[in-house]
Amino acid sequence: MKNIFYAQSGGVTAVINATAAGVIQGARSLRVLAGVNGILGAIHEQLIDTSLEDISTITALMETPGGIFGSCRYKLPDYADSPEIYHRILQVLQAHNVGYFLYNGGGDSQDTTHKLATVCQQQQIPINCIGIPKTIDNDIPHIDSSPGFGSVAKYVATSIAQAGLDVKSMSCNSTKVFILEVMGRHTGWIAAASGLAQTTKELSPHIILMPEVPLQPAVLLKQVAQTVKEFDFCTIVVAEGVRYADETTFRNKEHTDAFGHAQLGGAGIQLGQMITKQLGYKHHCSVADYLQRSARHLASANDLAQAYTLGQHAVSLALSGANDVMASIKRTSNEPYTWTMDQVPLSEVANVEHPVPRNFISENGMHITPACRQYLLPLIQGESWPSFKSGLPVHAKLKRVILPTKLAKYNK
Amino acid sequence: MKNIFYAQSGGVTAVINATAAGVIQGARSLRVLAGVNGILGAIHEQLIDTSLEDISTITALMETPGGIFGSCRYKLPDYADSPEIYHRILQVLQAHNVGYFLYNGGGDSQDTTHKLATVCQQQQIPINCIGIPKTIDNDIPHIDSSPGFGSVAKYVATSIAQAGLDVKSMSCNSTKVFILEVMGRHTGWIAAASGLAQTTKELSPHIILMPEVPLQPAVLLKQVAQTVKEFDFCTIVVAEGVRYADETTFRNKEHTDAFGHAQLGGAGIQLGQMITKQLGYKHHCSVADYLQRSARHLASANDLAQAYTLGQHAVSLALSGANDVMASIKRTSNEPYTWTMDQVPLSEVANVEHPVPRNFISENGMHITPACRQYLLPLIQGESWPSFKSGLPVHAKLKRVILPTKLAKYNK
Repeated sequence: MKNIFYAQSGGVTAVINATAAGVIQGARSLRVLAGVNGILGAIHEQLIDTSLEDISTITALMETPGGIFGSCRYKLPDYADSPEIYHRILQVLQAHNVGYFLYNGGGDSQDTTHKLATVCQQQQIPINCIGIPKTIDNDIPHIDSSPGFGSVAKYVATSIAQAGLDVKSMSCNSTKVFILEVMGRHTGWIAAASGLAQTTKELSPHIILMPEVPLQPAVLLKQVAQTVKEFDFCTIVVAEGVRYADETTFRNKEHTDAFGHAQLGGAGIQLGQMITKQLGYKHHCSVADYLQRSARHLASANDLAQAYTLGQHAVSLALSGANDVMASIKRTSNEPYTWTMDQVPLSEVANVEHPVPRNFISENGMHITPACRQYLLPLIQGESWPSFKSGLPVHAKLKRVILPTKLAKYNK
Repeated sequence: MKNIFYAQSGGVTAVINATAAGVIQGARSLRVLAGVNGILGAIHEQLIDTSLEDISTITALMETPGGIFGSCRYKLPDYADSPEIYHRILQVLQAHNVGYFLYNGGGDSQDTTHKLATVCQQQQIPINCIGIPKTIDNDIPHIDSSPGFGSVAKYVATSIAQAGLDVKSMSCNSTKVFILEVMGRHTGWIAAASGLAQTTKELSPHIILMPEVPLQPAVLLKQVAQTVKEFDFCTIVVAEGVRYADETTFRNKEHTDAFGHAQLGGAGIQLGQMITKQLGYKHHCSVADYLQRSARHLASANDLAQAYTLGQHAVSLALSGANDVMASIKRTSNEPYTWTMDQVPLSEVANVEHPVPRNFISENGMHITPACRQYLLPLIQGESWPSFKSGLPVHAKLKRVILPTKLAKYNK
């Protein structure tokens, strides 16, 4: 019997550990070795034996945000450039009798899995490589939504609904404009999801700014002024990646991550300054940042269920001989919302970014359409309040037994 | 039978509407007239007849954040400077047969209530003036904690607990430092409350920065570096009002509110930049801003109960003839946490700021002591998940019938 390697990669979510629970519980009698810090765990032969964890701990993963085994931002180089890194990974996996490589991450991680699968196939190494999607950004193609997205969608929609009531209370002679900056990288999915809270025109958010629509300051300012005129206040959700027509963004150019992506941020604060300067309105700005993607207390029950089931499905795929595919979810009906498990060749997923389509964005470019609402609404359904003790959420704590190494240290 | 005037003032909270519900339900057969936008509703004769609202709406106030009747930032001038404003307010109240003035706000609002009570007493006008405390900042003296604080305390402690797990996952080769900026004006109560989440040394937050302790950049940077060395990551909660020894803060000096207070903000972002520049660590920063004070979904059940009960208590005080007092809460035991209703002369409350005492702050000035934990812990106990429908929280919607005016328009 072969072992399963499982690891978490890229930015973590409120429900990625539910996927881990799905993998571990789906593996049944097979041993799941979890890589410490994503694929770095395979490179440095740091593998946690999850079979030694209590069942209660695995169950508690369902209520624990973050990546319990540690994640990484690591871009696997091309084989032609660095064959030694592939040899090392495969050596470690084979030393630990791994027959299944399950990698849980975003677009870059699907690329990593695809590259490894290709090398395994070329070299006839019997390791089935399966990608398990995860990203709050929802920018992975060929899946109904990426696990993690539904929960952040619920968080931002709930947050702007609540904060909108706050701003409304204060508007008579204090704050008139409130801005919530959300994540989403180069796509506006998270910002778009906030639009679900606006079930009537006065409710928040009044304006949504997505990277898919070039920012036009004059048009925006006019819309803000008009909204304040109508309701006496204006709430805006802005995606961190929002950009001008010339592709420049509010991004902070000083920092780039391991993939060479610029670290985004600052859009909300800069927008607020512009609005106060140009229109004279007092503003407030929240930057949700990591709060939005770790808010397990406000997870979507549908998202949680899909995250867990995808983990189980990935194991099934691997055991049934699938290879070089991503475990996926296919929507079969909107009302009632039904979905089924699916698979997609990794070659069709890796490095493809899935933006918000134009027909999901209102004509003025600053809100969502009914079609978008129909797509998004099922994703935030259901609450799954986690256990609290002494006023605070209870989180899983691993024994975290790392397997004895079998190979020499890797010093590259 | 006299009517009750009730209004909400200053920054709103997740539970101020629970106090409104307590007032309305405590008033029984008496009519409660709610001022639109705080005391401005009395000045402009904009009074909502709450007796026309359905019982279900009043109950729903328990689950609705923000100030349902509208709030304001308005500093009542001294009588000597503007007697006409007092005459107008009293004229409106008397025209609507008001015998009880209940004002629900922070320190400035207690001052307003005290001033009005003083004038009523001097002029022998039979209106009993009662202050009802509310502020997330917990800076009002002579009360166990201000309603609104327990809920924001629970929100920030939960948020940093969750976000801390996220940062821990990412630390191996990405974000090492996470900063959460919280409110609290010139006091560190909210920041201090985040410390409840750190039940073991590795858990977040590792560092808490409060305005009560002058910021020493070199000492802070050393602590950050040491924490990263020990745990590979470091989480910091910083109060918006944190200041250097020379009293300068990170505040944005461009904006001041109606009370002449500077609008604070920016501490988290500036701290992050300093840390990355000096230590080279990648950082992320969340600015909770209005999200923290509108997060009804994560309210403390104890806070909610106290907010509601205080509303009822204020009515009882008023009807029993009390005047120029603030309805208050007295702790009678820590374990089990028990409390009783109390009253305090407004003269002892108005304009007195209640900072975090030195014995609640750890020796190094960057965390809380066991005494502080003992004080804070009961305040975040209990969850009170609000009703959700279609994936989003359900909020009260008023009929909002405004009484016909009896006086000429006030044009001052």
